[in-house]
Amino acid sequence: MKTKQEYIDSLRKLNLELYVFGEKVSNFVDHPIIRPSIDCVAATYETAQNPEFSDFMTVQSHLNGKKINRFCHIHRSTDDLVKKSKMERSLGAYTGSCFQRCVGMDALNALSIITYNMDQKHKTQYYQRFLKYLQYVQDEDLTCCGAMTDAKGDRSLRPAEQADPDQYLRVVQERKDGIIVRGNKLHQTGAANSHEIICMPTRAMRAEDKDYAISFALPSDTRGIIYIYGRQSCDTRKTEDGDIDTGNILYSGQECMVVFDDVFVPWDRVFMYKEYEFTADFVEKFAAYHRQSYACKSGIGDVLVGASQLVAEYQGIAGASHVRNKITEMIHLNETMMSCSLACAYEGHKEPSGTYFVNTLLANVSKLNVTRFPYEISRLAQEIAGGSLVTMPSEKDLKNPRIGKYVAKYLQGVTGTNAEDRIRALRLIENICLGTGAVCYLTESLHGAGSPEAQKIMITRESNPERMKKAAKRLCGIKS
Amino acid sequence: MKTKQEYIDSLRKLNLELYVFGEKVSNFVDHPIIRPSIDCVAATYETAQNPEFSDFMTVQSHLNGKKINRFCHIHRSTDDLVKKSKMERSLGAYTGSCFQRCVGMDALNALSIITYNMDQKHKTQYYQRFLKYLQYVQDEDLTCCGAMTDAKGDRSLRPAEQADPDQYLRVVQERKDGIIVRGNKLHQTGAANSHEIICMPTRAMRAEDKDYAISFALPSDTRGIIYIYGRQSCDTRKTEDGDIDTGNILYSGQECMVVFDDVFVPWDRVFMYKEYEFTADFVEKFAAYHRQSYACKSGIGDVLVGASQLVAEYQGIAGASHVRNKITEMIHLNETMMSCSLACAYEGHKEPSGTYFVNTLLANVSKLNVTRFPYEISRLAQEIAGGSLVTMPSEKDLKNPRIGKYVAKYLQGVTGTNAEDRIRALRLIENICLGTGAVCYLTESLHGAGSPEAQKIMITRESNPERMKKAAKRLCGIKS
Amino acid sequence: MKTKQEYIDSLRKLNLELYVFGEKVSNFVDHPIIRPSIDCVAATYETAQNPEFSDFMTVQSHLNGKKINRFCHIHRSTDDLVKKSKMERSLGAYTGSCFQRCVGMDALNALSIITYNMDQKHKTQYYQRFLKYLQYVQDEDLTCCGAMTDAKGDRSLRPAEQADPDQYLRVVQERKDGIIVRGNKLHQTGAANSHEIICMPTRAMRAEDKDYAISFALPSDTRGIIYIYGRQSCDTRKTEDGDIDTGNILYSGQECMVVFDDVFVPWDRVFMYKEYEFTADFVEKFAAYHRQSYACKSGIGDVLVGASQLVAEYQGIAGASHVRNKITEMIHLNETMMSCSLACAYEGHKEPSGTYFVNTLLANVSKLNVTRFPYEISRLAQEIAGGSLVTMPSEKDLKNPRIGKYVAKYLQGVTGTNAEDRIRALRLIENICLGTGAVCYLTESLHGAGSPEAQKIMITRESNPERMKKAAKRLCGIKS
Amino acid sequence: MKTKQEYIDSLRKLNLELYVFGEKVSNFVDHPIIRPSIDCVAATYETAQNPEFSDFMTVQSHLNGKKINRFCHIHRSTDDLVKKSKMERSLGAYTGSCFQRCVGMDALNALSIITYNMDQKHKTQYYQRFLKYLQYVQDEDLTCCGAMTDAKGDRSLRPAEQADPDQYLRVVQERKDGIIVRGNKLHQTGAANSHEIICMPTRAMRAEDKDYAISFALPSDTRGIIYIYGRQSCDTRKTEDGDIDTGNILYSGQECMVVFDDVFVPWDRVFMYKEYEFTADFVEKFAAYHRQSYACKSGIGDVLVGASQLVAEYQGIAGASHVRNKITEMIHLNETMMSCSLACAYEGHKEPSGTYFVNTLLANVSKLNVTRFPYEISRLAQEIAGGSLVTMPSEKDLKNPRIGKYVAKYLQGVTGTNAEDRIRALRLIENICLGTGAVCYLTESLHGAGSPEAQKIMITRESNPERMKKAAKRLCGIKS
Repeated sequence: MKTKQEYIDSLRKLNLELYVFGEKVSNFVDHPIIRPSIDCVAATYETAQNPEFSDFMTVQSHLNGKKINRFCHIHRSTDDLVKKSKMERSLGAYTGSCFQRCVGMDALNALSIITYNMDQKHKTQYYQRFLKYLQYVQDEDLTCCGAMTDAKGDRSLRPAEQADPDQYLRVVQERKDGIIVRGNKLHQTGAANSHEIICMPTRAMRAEDKDYAISFALPSDTRGIIYIYGRQSCDTRKTEDGDIDTGNILYSGQECMVVFDDVFVPWDRVFMYKEYEFTADFVEKFAAYHRQSYACKSGIGDVLVGASQLVAEYQGIAGASHVRNKITEMIHLNETMMSCSLACAYEGHKEPSGTYFVNTLLANVSKLNVTRFPYEISRLAQEIAGGSLVTMPSEKDLKNPRIGKYVAKYLQGVTGTNAEDRIRALRLIENICLGTGAVCYLTESLHGAGSPEAQKIMITRESNPERMKKAAKRLCGIKS
Repeated sequence: MKTKQEYIDSLRKLNLELYVFGEKVSNFVDHPIIRPSIDCVAATYETAQNPEFSDFMTVQSHLNGKKINRFCHIHRSTDDLVKKSKMERSLGAYTGSCFQRCVGMDALNALSIITYNMDQKHKTQYYQRFLKYLQYVQDEDLTCCGAMTDAKGDRSLRPAEQADPDQYLRVVQERKDGIIVRGNKLHQTGAANSHEIICMPTRAMRAEDKDYAISFALPSDTRGIIYIYGRQSCDTRKTEDGDIDTGNILYSGQECMVVFDDVFVPWDRVFMYKEYEFTADFVEKFAAYHRQSYACKSGIGDVLVGASQLVAEYQGIAGASHVRNKITEMIHLNETMMSCSLACAYEGHKEPSGTYFVNTLLANVSKLNVTRFPYEISRLAQEIAGGSLVTMPSEKDLKNPRIGKYVAKYLQGVTGTNAEDRIRALRLIENICLGTGAVCYLTESLHGAGSPEAQKIMITRESNPERMKKAAKRLCGIKS
Repeated sequence: MKTKQEYIDSLRKLNLELYVFGEKVSNFVDHPIIRPSIDCVAATYETAQNPEFSDFMTVQSHLNGKKINRFCHIHRSTDDLVKKSKMERSLGAYTGSCFQRCVGMDALNALSIITYNMDQKHKTQYYQRFLKYLQYVQDEDLTCCGAMTDAKGDRSLRPAEQADPDQYLRVVQERKDGIIVRGNKLHQTGAANSHEIICMPTRAMRAEDKDYAISFALPSDTRGIIYIYGRQSCDTRKTEDGDIDTGNILYSGQECMVVFDDVFVPWDRVFMYKEYEFTADFVEKFAAYHRQSYACKSGIGDVLVGASQLVAEYQGIAGASHVRNKITEMIHLNETMMSCSLACAYEGHKEPSGTYFVNTLLANVSKLNVTRFPYEISRLAQEIAGGSLVTMPSEKDLKNPRIGKYVAKYLQGVTGTNAEDRIRALRLIENICLGTGAVCYLTESLHGAGSPEAQKIMITRESNPERMKKAAKRLCGIKS
Repeated sequence: MKTKQEYIDSLRKLNLELYVFGEKVSNFVDHPIIRPSIDCVAATYETAQNPEFSDFMTVQSHLNGKKINRFCHIHRSTDDLVKKSKMERSLGAYTGSCFQRCVGMDALNALSIITYNMDQKHKTQYYQRFLKYLQYVQDEDLTCCGAMTDAKGDRSLRPAEQADPDQYLRVVQERKDGIIVRGNKLHQTGAANSHEIICMPTRAMRAEDKDYAISFALPSDTRGIIYIYGRQSCDTRKTEDGDIDTGNILYSGQECMVVFDDVFVPWDRVFMYKEYEFTADFVEKFAAYHRQSYACKSGIGDVLVGASQLVAEYQGIAGASHVRNKITEMIHLNETMMSCSLACAYEGHKEPSGTYFVNTLLANVSKLNVTRFPYEISRLAQEIAGGSLVTMPSEKDLKNPRIGKYVAKYLQGVTGTNAEDRIRALRLIENICLGTGAVCYLTESLHGAGSPEAQKIMITRESNPERMKKAAKRLCGIKS
């Protein structure tokens, strides 16, 4: 397994075409806006070598029995699934941010099921091809970007109906040695921090959409792949002097638009090619795994509860019954989310390939709660924090020789505490509720791994109304 | 194990002092208001002999290896805890009502932990005494009433401070062969349908309250125990001709006030006697087990979803997007509750006595959701049902030769359905949202196993704010 | 104006064909199940002669300047509209129930607008015909039933598409002296307690539905009209000895199914005849007025807050912070509903006929809140009430010489209070949350004056997205 | 009345001691971070001269009959109160931001009541002094900052109990010509954009706190007053090239910490001096007026609905039923808030001074909804917007010659729309949900004009539980 430092060094070797704020970036590893997101992925390497985390961060590979990072692992038991949920929460609490590496893990696991199933039906050889790729990922302890969401153009039209056929990623040429693909993947979490990018179809495809029914993996710096860095609320605070105003002084997330400008994929990296009838199941498998992954939000919730409790203590209100009630409600909602993620893991089952898969119904229930509760937890945190959260002067004011004393005097709370600590805790809350942290704690909780409507469709599909109707009929005496 | 019929016959042998609507009842087994609640307990015997249910309804006794009903079992693994949650849901869906028998199971399991712990500290012999009692319960396949809630008088005062010392159940005399107890237990679910009644302290007691720190078990028809039947919404519909208007034509719940008018308890049935320092833990253990038990409400939720779907189909609105949305939301809330019950079971652990105990934090999270979601599920069911739910004529109008044809004509919905089926489904929804079923699905979901404030106190106590504060401090750079 | 007694006496003169529980009732005025609903309408007569209420209960007729009951009045100013909202709330608090008379008032006001508008377009004479009828209603101080909701059969089909053409009330024959109508009106609030029944179309009709586009008024005991009494939760408690268990010992509501079995309507009582293009506006006008009328629920909310506060005091928990919080939340929700009803009145305007009409958008917003908040208020009331709400013995147990002393002893709360008062307050809460009161406070709040989806459609229609899009475009610099 | 330009010019004449990001600013009018907030206040001058707004923006002074800006007016009728609410909403929709000037208006109106009442009791001359000041404000069409919130130190201690006595603003010296004050006001909306600052006590004071019971007005550039600019989420985007990424390209809000470093106040500017027994009423009066003022949030809500609708149209999802539902829900919540603001205005009354005052109960109900609904509206807006809201590249990427074409291609939605418009609409939503706009739309909605707990206390105080208990007792037959 790579160390944190080896991971960071490995990124320096990548030759990415990456743009940030309209400028091409050569040394992205030391870019102040990008670096906290790299450090956040690096935390998945660091904790794997920390005994406090190793019980769930590392696992034995089923390919060769070596100890590997769980992010490169294929789940082989419900215990694996449960440890995944607990790993997600722990890292959420450790980073207070999006550590990005789960998307690749979920893509690998979905591929392990779908490639096997395709082979069973079509006598193809995808599964062996995939296992070889997996071995490489495990051996090198790689971070993979799992790329699903296309641009989609006019949402009321299917892929093949779009005015611009590139609105969904597609094969534009088939060659003897591989294929040429064109299109775009949006909202790519951690894309520039990854060694590999794994593309998947974004929706159920029909026969007429078969050029869009493709899956493949490529080194992230393959020629023709262009990364355009997404803006986040308060991103430029990371470029300012000092650290207080960033809130989370260690970590942040990352989202990129990834353009595929006629990129070549060799056949040994192609994992689906026009088998459109497997796209629905592919999307559902990846989505269910990834919906489980949102256990990370319970970890960020832990941070938000901790910061709110700190502020309450600094301000002398920690004993007020209404404050205690709000803290309790935050914890209640946070643990409800976690319970659902655990339940979908514990209620998992084995797929034909031997991979363990979560309970789809409960994975969707889990994520649907994640689209709601963080907003209420965030509102409660802001309620405890008070107005200073959004009216405080900057770090530079606190450090200014003329006025710093006033800031320190009037933002001190309870005797024995100091203004700087209070400001730091408030800035952390601001980060998670309004700043870079809010991108992952709020908006991505809504849309990541699919928007709420997608979860509702799956909940409807996975429930069993006939069983429930039958129970009702018996109890009220309907015979027919 | 007893058959359903043997259970019912065994009740006939009881010599209870029981009052219903101000009248002493001699043959309570055939009393029309009581009988559906007996049939509901009987369902726990019937399903134990039904292969469809037997995987979770029956289990091997750890005392003698015989197959027993899970309601008489002490949990010996997390699998036992999980099967308990699933049994609860299944029976909830099977009966659409409160099957009453879980309280005794939860009392037995709590006793198995507490009697052991008391012995460890005080060198008492409670645990062996308890095991002997347990063997008897298992051998005879008995239904036990777990009795916790006292009258409490002025809630702002502790037991020993009350103007009337009997407001909490207490020992009034110690004799060589046993003790004399006096007081009252309120809200006793299934009390008159039980063979045994197991009393427990209702709250944490202090030294001055030690006469209230008692636990014991007695045959339900012990001299001096008086049962006064509680009224339920729509209870007298069960006495009317016909069955449609009862909604749930098979089952109902039961609540009694149980008076202890100087009742003698022999020493071999006393399981706690003034060890007040164990009362807090006793209450918490029983409460956590019992909060898990509210998985039954997900079963009733299944019935409500089924009935709502039926009504929607009868009325021709099942395809409307807003109806589908509501059904999905009902399922989502229902599964969220179930996920929490499962999570607290899967995350259980072994106590010193060998009994497996649920995760306390998650058991309380689970129950706190149960105090909220059934109300919203019920509101959604009423929204789908439409106004007819509360304006429909009675069964007698439907059957009346002059006007029955109008009722049948104007309450028919979609062609091919008939008014009676629609009415039956609506009456089932009425039962669960407003009638006898609402007693258990709504108000008891709020207060059974402790009111929401009790869960909030436990959630606060079981969470770890220091861990969360530490995580927050690291992320925002607070050193102190 | 009639006195309360004159109103009751006037009902005795009606020759209704009325069925209750499958039996034809001759003296319905003294029927124990019906009488409380009559007394509730009678309260609208009684309070009109009570100086404490007269400011908003009475008003000067614009027809002849005489003092009349506001329920017979056509609104001539926004002050009239505001006083209507306040009258509704006051009567809700006075009766804790549905006083039924608002439907007729809302029908009269809608007719005053629509008949005028039809005449303007079609040169018909409906408005004068209506005014003559209005004069009669005012002179006699009549209670009118406003009848809108049809049976509707298969909801996915329009009136003219139904397999059974009678599923919507329609004209089946046109005669020289009038018309013959056939069909049904469901959920008719207070129908049997009314002197007159005013029928209106239930939805927007098209040309092919024109036989259904009719409105007329008839004496309630016209030959061919059949009333079938609707069941309510706990309705038969009114037939028991004693009064405690009814909860609301004075009043209740009433819902009937009303069958029109080929009923003759003379032309001077016909107010719309096939003018289908006015049906949409008719429904919207009536609905908006009637949605405003749900201010009555804030009155019932007052009762529920009062009863909850009483129980909290009896139980010694009134000072607990969580109880105070819940009471405050109940009041907050209750006043939010009232504010919306007031706002739609204050923001009313004059229609061409001179009638004042409420703000349609806000009337719908008001009602949509009413479909939600009473459920939460009711849940909070149950939370404060505690489990006794649904487990208490009956009044007969309290009065029983052998066991009454136990009920009195163990249901007493704080010293100085008595069990009977506590039981009475709890039974009132039960009535409103689960019993006859719940029919009007909960389910009818959902569906009365149209179900939530109807309000959502109107809110969408009445809002102005173009204004909002324009504001957004200017602020973000979109030129097109 | 001043024109927009005259207002801006008048600010240039101020000699403020103002710090932004640790630097003293001399020309604050042209500072890129400050200017949009100045333009936002300027909108209150601009619209006063726009006929479309003049009906509610301008009013006749009751002092001299001249036409003045409503922000300088003392309410003389309920119509004035209603127009205030409507003005707030209109300006909220016009600016999509906080226009800052309402705080001074609310302070003036509260002073007009309290100075009069103090004079009545103490024979002081505050009211005439105030009227003279008011005349000056009206003549010069000034913007006043209403300053209430103190630093508060340890919240569990009263002003006189603090370790640092300056934690609440206080008089430190009384001179013949005036007083010297020291302390701090936090969260001062628009402070640096104001001509005058009006200080008020922040809470109810007791005799021992009387040095803190002071109110006065000063020119904003009085010697010893120091302004420290508050940071806002995304504030520095205003300093970047281009305008797209700011979201709201025209306006923003402003919050300052204001230090009073031994500042002299002449007697003719002192409006309360140690009359501590009037502080509670002062706070309540100002707070109720200011809680009404949050009608502005319904205006920002209009912008958010408009922007969400635009994005839905650009993305081809405007016709989806779930999108329409969400838009409707946003409007519903938005109009509920507005209804409450209107209701508290319409239900206002005349105070002894002749000033009209809002209904306190409903003003608090109104604000309590504002602490909740914008969060849900914002969540719904984010749900409609989709993930691009937080993953889109920057404006510079869109304008970059190499990659701009990809951004334009892949962020285009429906044919005929263009990526830039879609990005602009999304950036506006980002601004209001996460950026500078979120400061005023979310966090300030929570805490401005007092935090939710303050509203709950007032709702409890202003409600009439005895009336409600009496109603309940009558209905259930409790005699005592």
